[in-house]
Formats: sequence, C-alpha cells, structure tokens
Amino acid sequence: MSGIAHARPGDLTFVANAKYLPQLTRTRASAVILGANGAAAPRAASKAARPPCAILRADDPYSAFARAVALFAHARPPDKGVDPLSAVAADASLGVDVSIGPFVTVGAGATVGARTVVYPNAVIGPGVKIGEDCVIHSQVAIRDRALVGNRVILHDGVVVGSDGFGFARQKDGTHLKIPQHADVVIEDDVEIGANSTIDRPAVGETRIRAGTKIDNLVHIAHGVTIGCRTLLAAQVGIAGSTIIGDDVTMAGQSGVTGHVTVGDRALVGAKSAVLQPVGADTFVTGIPAIDHADWRRASVTFARLPLFRKRIAQLERRIATLEEKLARWQKRKKGR
Amino acid sequence: MSGIAHARPGDLTFVANAKYLPQLTRTRASAVILGANGAAAPRAASKAARPPCAILRADDPYSAFARAVALFAHARPPDKGVDPLSAVAADASLGVDVSIGPFVTVGAGATVGARTVVYPNAVIGPGVKIGEDCVIHSQVAIRDRALVGNRVILHDGVVVGSDGFGFARQKDGTHLKIPQHADVVIEDDVEIGANSTIDRPAVGETRIRAGTKIDNLVHIAHGVTIGCRTLLAAQVGIAGSTIIGDDVTMAGQSGVTGHVTVGDRALVGAKSAVLQPVGADTFVTGIPAIDHADWRRASVTFARLPLFRKRIAQLERRIATLEEKLARWQKRKKGR
Amino acid sequence: MSGIAHARPGDLTFVANAKYLPQLTRTRASAVILGANGAAAPRAASKAARPPCAILRADDPYSAFARAVALFAHARPPDKGVDPLSAVAADASLGVDVSIGPFVTVGAGATVGARTVVYPNAVIGPGVKIGEDCVIHSQVAIRDRALVGNRVILHDGVVVGSDGFGFARQKDGTHLKIPQHADVVIEDDVEIGANSTIDRPAVGETRIRAGTKIDNLVHIAHGVTIGCRTLLAAQVGIAGSTIIGDDVTMAGQSGVTGHVTVGDRALVGAKSAVLQPVGADTFVTGIPAIDHADWRRASVTFARLPLFRKRIAQLERRIATLEEKLARWQKRKKGR
Repeated sequence: MSGIAHARPGDLTFVANAKYLPQLTRTRASAVILGANGAAAPRAASKAARPPCAILRADDPYSAFARAVALFAHARPPDKGVDPLSAVAADASLGVDVSIGPFVTVGAGATVGARTVVYPNAVIGPGVKIGEDCVIHSQVAIRDRALVGNRVILHDGVVVGSDGFGFARQKDGTHLKIPQHADVVIEDDVEIGANSTIDRPAVGETRIRAGTKIDNLVHIAHGVTIGCRTLLAAQVGIAGSTIIGDDVTMAGQSGVTGHVTVGDRALVGAKSAVLQPVGADTFVTGIPAIDHADWRRASVTFARLPLFRKRIAQLERRIATLEEKLARWQKRKKGR
Repeated sequence: MSGIAHARPGDLTFVANAKYLPQLTRTRASAVILGANGAAAPRAASKAARPPCAILRADDPYSAFARAVALFAHARPPDKGVDPLSAVAADASLGVDVSIGPFVTVGAGATVGARTVVYPNAVIGPGVKIGEDCVIHSQVAIRDRALVGNRVILHDGVVVGSDGFGFARQKDGTHLKIPQHADVVIEDDVEIGANSTIDRPAVGETRIRAGTKIDNLVHIAHGVTIGCRTLLAAQVGIAGSTIIGDDVTMAGQSGVTGHVTVGDRALVGAKSAVLQPVGADTFVTGIPAIDHADWRRASVTFARLPLFRKRIAQLERRIATLEEKLARWQKRKKGR
Repeated sequence: MSGIAHARPGDLTFVANAKYLPQLTRTRASAVILGANGAAAPRAASKAARPPCAILRADDPYSAFARAVALFAHARPPDKGVDPLSAVAADASLGVDVSIGPFVTVGAGATVGARTVVYPNAVIGPGVKIGEDCVIHSQVAIRDRALVGNRVILHDGVVVGSDGFGFARQKDGTHLKIPQHADVVIEDDVEIGANSTIDRPAVGETRIRAGTKIDNLVHIAHGVTIGCRTLLAAQVGIAGSTIIGDDVTMAGQSGVTGHVTVGDRALVGAKSAVLQPVGADTFVTGIPAIDHADWRRASVTFARLPLFRKRIAQLERRIATLEEKLARWQKRKKGR
C-alpha cells in the first residue's frame, strides 16, 4: 500500500481526490483503485490518464482503499494481560483479554471492558468506566468517574475529565474556583486525537456522542455536548455549555463561543469564530462567522480595500468639482 | 446540584446568566439560587419567570452556587503518603501529609510542600520547589529548578519549564540553539489547564503571578510575565518577552506577539491577534487587534464589501455620465 | 548571564533587538554584548546609549550571546545508565552511554542511539529507531516504528506517530477509519516543542527534514513534509499531505490547509490561514493569506469600513442631487 507519489512496483495505490489524477500516468504502482463510473475522475479524464498498471474500480475508492489498508496494515497489538509493572487497584474490574501495559495506573473501582488495550504510562482514575474494544494510548489521563463507551480510541496525551474553567470573580478581584466534579461521557465509536482535552463541568455533563471523530489539540470545554458523527479538525476549540449538532464538520483552528448551538450538518470553515447560533445545514466562515458565500465574496474584496479608499476619495473630488461648477453656473444664471 | 436544563426533583440549581431565565418556569429542580434584587434577572423578568420551586436569593448567585457546589462535591482525594511504586530521590524533601502517586518521579533536591497531592505518572524534575496545598495532576512535567507557589493547581499534561523557542540563525542558514536554562516561576493560587505549556527563557525569567487562571492548551513563551488575577482562556498564545498586566482577560484562541505590553484590566476578544502594545482598561479585538467598538462596526460592514464595490462602480459610472454631460454643455455654450 | 532588564552587577547581558537599546544607559550589568559596527544599534544610537559597563562587540551579538549562555548554563544532565524502574524490552538495542530514566518504556525491537537521554516517564514504542545524542523529555510518546535521527530534541509531551485524521464517510453517515500505519520520520537536528503532535499517514510518510525547529502545541497532520531549517512558531497547524519548503518561517497560530505547497523561504504571518499554494520567497498574511504588503494596507483600512459606508452613502446622495438638478435644467432648457 502506498500513496500515488511514493508507490513502487508491487504497491497498491488509489486516487480519490481528482487533484492527484495527473500523477496516474507516471505511477510505478502495480495496481490502483479508481472510482467506478468516474466517481473520482470524470470519464474523459480517466481515459486521458490511463495508468500503466492494473485498475480496480470501486463505487467509493476511498472506502475501498480504507478496507485494503486494513487488510495489509501490520500493526502489532500489544500482548494481552496485565503487565507486572502496572498499578491496578485491587477492586478494579478488568474484562477478558484486556492488555494493560507497564506503568499504567488503574484507580480504585475502575472498570476496563473486554479486549480493551491500555498502552504504557496511561492513567485511568478511580471510578472510571471504559467499555469493550477500546484503545487507550500512552500518556492519556482519564480523570475520576469519567465514562468511556465501546470501541473508543484515545490517542496519546488525551485528557478526559479535567476541571472546566469556571470561576466566580469576587469583590476583591480574586477568582473563586467553582469545583468541577460533574460527569464527562465519551460515547461509543468516538476517536480523539493526540493531546486533545475534554473538560468536565460543575453541574450537568460534558458529552461526546457516538461516532464523533476529534483531531489533535482540540479543546472541549465544560458542559459542551457534541452530537453524533461530527468531525472536529485539529486545534478546534469549543467554549463552555455550547451544543454542537450531529454530522457537523468544523475545519482546522475554528472555534465556537460559549452558550450557543450549532445545528446538525452545519459546516464551519477553517479558522472561523462562531459567535452566534448557527442553523442546521448552513456553511459559515469568518471572524465572526457569516454565510460562507458572503464571506468568500467579501474576502476577495478585502485586498482591494486600499483601492476602494482611493476610488472613494477620487469620487469625492470629482463630485466636489461638479458641484462647484454647477454652483458657479447657477450663480451666473441668477446674475444674468 | 445540577444545571438548570438537567435538574430533577431533589436538585439545587442556579441562574446567573440571564439567557437561562426562560428555562426557570419549567425547571424540575427543588430549589434555585437567584440574584437578590435582580442581580441575575431584572425585577420584572424574575416575576414573570417565577420558578415552581424554592428560591434562594444571593447578591452574587454564581459565587453562592460555587460555594454550594463545594459543599456537595464528592471528590475523593487520593490517600496520603508516598506510593511504593514512585521514584522519589533520596535527597528530595517532602512536607507533611503529601500524597505521591504511583509512577511519580521526584528528582534530586526537589521539594514538595505540605499537603500537596501529586497524581500518578507526574514528573517533578531535580531542584524543583513546589509549595503547600498544591494539586499536580497526572502526566504533568515540571522541569528542573522550576518554582511553584502554594495552592497551585496544574491539570493533566501541563508542562512547566520546557525550553523557550530561541535560536540564532547562522550564515549557512542553520539555527544555533540558545540554551534555555533560566527561571520559571508559578506564583500562589495559579491554576493551569490541561496540556498547557509554560516555557523558560535563556536569561531572566518566565513568571505567572499570583491568582492567575489559565485554561487548556495555552502557550506561554520564554521570558513572558503574566500579572495577577489574569484570565487566559483556552488555546491562547503569548509570544516571547511579552508582559501581560493584572486583571487582564484574554478570550479563547487569541494571541499576543512578542516584546509588547498589555495593560492592566485590558480585555482581548476571541481569536484576536495583539500586534501592538495595548493600554490599561482597553478592550481590543481583531487581527490585528483594534478598539473593540471599531472592530465590531467594521466587522458588521465586512460582509457588505462586495456591495460597496458595486456601489462605488455605480457611482463612478454615474459621475462619468454627469461629467460628460456637463462637458458637452460647456462645449456647446462656448460654441455659441 | 541575564536579560538587560534583570541584569545585576556581575552579570553579562546583551542587546540584539534595537528596541532594548534605551535600557542600556541604566543597566547594572558588568558587561554587555553589542553588535560590531552597529549590527544591533545604529552608530549614533549606540554612542548616545553608551552603557555604564564593559562592551563586548560581536558581528552577530545574538549568536555570541547564545555561545556565552552555553558556557555558563548550569544544566545537569541525568546520570548515564538504565534506571532499574524502567521497562526496556529484552530485544531493544541501547547505544553506549545512554540514559534511561525511571518509568520509561522502551518497546520490543526499539533502538536508542549512543549518548541519547530519555527522561522519566517517556514511552518509546516497539520498533522505534532513535539516533545518537538525542534528548527525549518526559511524557513524550513515540509510537511504533517511528524513525528519529541524531541530535533530535523532543520536549515534554510531544507525540510522534499518532494516527492521522483519516476517515471515509459511509452512506449511513458513519466514518470508516482508514488505518494509519505508514512511516513518520524526524530527521537530524530537529527540535520539537512541548505537547506538539506529529501524525503518521495511511500510506506514504510524514517527514520533518533536518534542522527544522518546531515550537509548542504545533499540529503536523498525516502525510505532511516539512523542509530543512524551517521554523514553525507555537500553535501552528499543518493539514494533511501539505508540503512546506526549506527555510520557511511560519509565525504563531498560523495554519496551512491540506494538499498545498508552501515554497522555500516563504514567510507566513501570525494567525494567517494559507488556503492556496504559496510561492518561494513570498511573504503572505491574512485569512485567507494574501501578499503581506497588500494585507497590511487592507488591514489599516479595515477599521475605516463604517466611515467608507458613510462616505459612499453621502456620495450617492450628492450625486442624486446633481442628477436631479441637471435633469431639471435639461427639462427647463427643452421647455424654452
């Protein structure tokens, strides 16, 4: 398996993004997965770019590629069992065929479901419940009583259940900490990228619903709800008590303010700041985020602002000249 | 204790944000904390929205709620003592009633003050001094000789004392590393959110002053000073040698360039980039950050830029028409 | 060694940034490194600001300072040898004079080169190859089969080789995970800041080329290539399959979209979003990033947008008045 640019004889590759079609003609791969009926390539283009190798057609070449990668991937899962160098509380409950690596801490009363793998140096707090078939990578910290569903993947350095950023400003200017001990729930089939952080609230809950995928270095504040099958790209931030719907996509480095709702299937452009509620099925971009098409047109215009300034100043001069001219004429007329 | 939306019979809830007042009439909570004299709700509104439960009035309902949460919070602190699976240097100094979890490393000559809790897998470097009543969560790394005050809370994955990003570009284009071994100081009552990073400088010091609260995934560069009681929301970044005043508030994903000063009590809007010094008691927003009111007005106008373009073009056509007309008249007149 | 502001008698300090020259006259330092021939200070300014201490002249005062810091820096490297509290796989290969701290995990078949230091609680996965003279700080996670060159520095909490964010959306809206098991390569002399994350791809490779320096909390997605001697400031994000050239500088909190190329020696301004390919030797800023000079002019104009709106509206009224006036005249003329 190899990308189109690096493929060598013997490799299987794929093209799902039309941008890479021109590279097809010079690939050294032995086989390539392409869209059936031009799913990835318009018919004409794919004829023009007939690759010098076997072609496998699939309705959805990216999914076919995903399945092929899974067949060939040579990930060696760690050995089953509990490493003698771990610290598992006597009353913790471990399912069948779990794998607990060295220097893993599992707190009092915690549960780790069947076949779940916990990589070295991860910390699972007291009372945490983790479901079956999860993968908890190294350096993860899951704080006390957090709930993690089945088939959840937490990449290295993820923090689940840290205190929300909640303080009440006192009359002397100091900040009284509001204890943050309420629930944090990661539902089934969620994947969270390296060094992302999911805070817990003072009351209520923080919840990441089933099937949602979160990239690296993402911040989810206290009391946030993220819907099902939503995608949050890297370095996204969601402020406190905000609700993100189902099937939402937020591009990299975008953010949403606190106490608002982003509707189902909404798209948020890269680097955007959502400061107002966003309806379902909308596409917003910008700081503050506005309709994407409006933002695009305005952005193109932005670089011309200095030119606008000149043109407005010119117009003002021209109109002043006309006004003077007309005023002189009027005077002369009256003078007649 | 519960949020207004999730409260059930038997629960105490609160409303400090007027936005949630409409939910009052249908709450299932048994009691609610509200502002006295309409602190959270204007008199009329609170009459209109009389909740179907007991009302507790407080001058500052958020602080009252914070205190109530603290009464009911069921956080179980870890046991006192030094876990046998930790690695504490023989010459490290541990105060009374400390708690040192499994797989914690405490380096040579380090000091951990009385009643401080160090959660599993945290690393405290050689010569580090940590005060009393601190909470150092899992996966924290405090590098050698860092100074941490009393009642400091470092959430999971925080790094204190990593090398500042300092290089001198050489004639051949390579970057000569400037060793970063100077001081980093976290004063009393500071709280730092999960996976935030506080660098140390080559010379001088990085200092976070007393009572400042920092959210998750925040970057504080080398040689920065953050004043007292300042709030930095998630994913904020402060570049090298910059000075942030007392009682400043920086909203999420904002940043400040290097070598500038942000005055006391300044507010920086979400996603802003402060590229110039900011005075005390000012509110700035934008990229680059400008006066917040100016930014707000300009932002509202931004979406209309394409319209401006059309209107300017129309004006140019109309004025050209007028100019031609007048020119023709003038010609005719002269011709007479 | 001390910064110009904190220097006391007995200290050596330096001025490489002209901004700090005014502080020279009142420094308490015993000696200061300054540019020869006004490298840091124009001749006149350096005369005006003659410091009350010894002056050391250097062609490049910042590099001279870097070397002086290195002479005086009091970093104590950890002891050589393998800590008995570590977990080193029986078939791992350790070079001479390595230092492996407590609670370090070194996986099966991994290689750690001569004189490399691995700080406490770092995790080195199975099959990882690390070169000579590297420094791997605490809480680092290097996933299986990652390749790390010589003289590489990974600060605390860095993750190398986590799964890229790759999913194929299925017809029912769920996301099929594309296994991410391909290569991730960190070449010689790279330094990566605290809590930064470097993902690995499904196919091909993620590669950070020699001499590149990356600051804290930076995200490098799957399949990205970063060239030689490039500088990425804190909180930068690079999306999947993008290629960043040699000697590029990206300022803090900037980002680049996926599948584009940023040319050699390009500069990207703070907080910018590169959404299109960027040529070599260009300087771009903004969201989306445009030519820096254009952006600067447009940004200055941005705050005046509400004024533009007023001026355009005024122009429209004035021109309407003129048009009416002329129309009346024309009518009258015809009427004559």
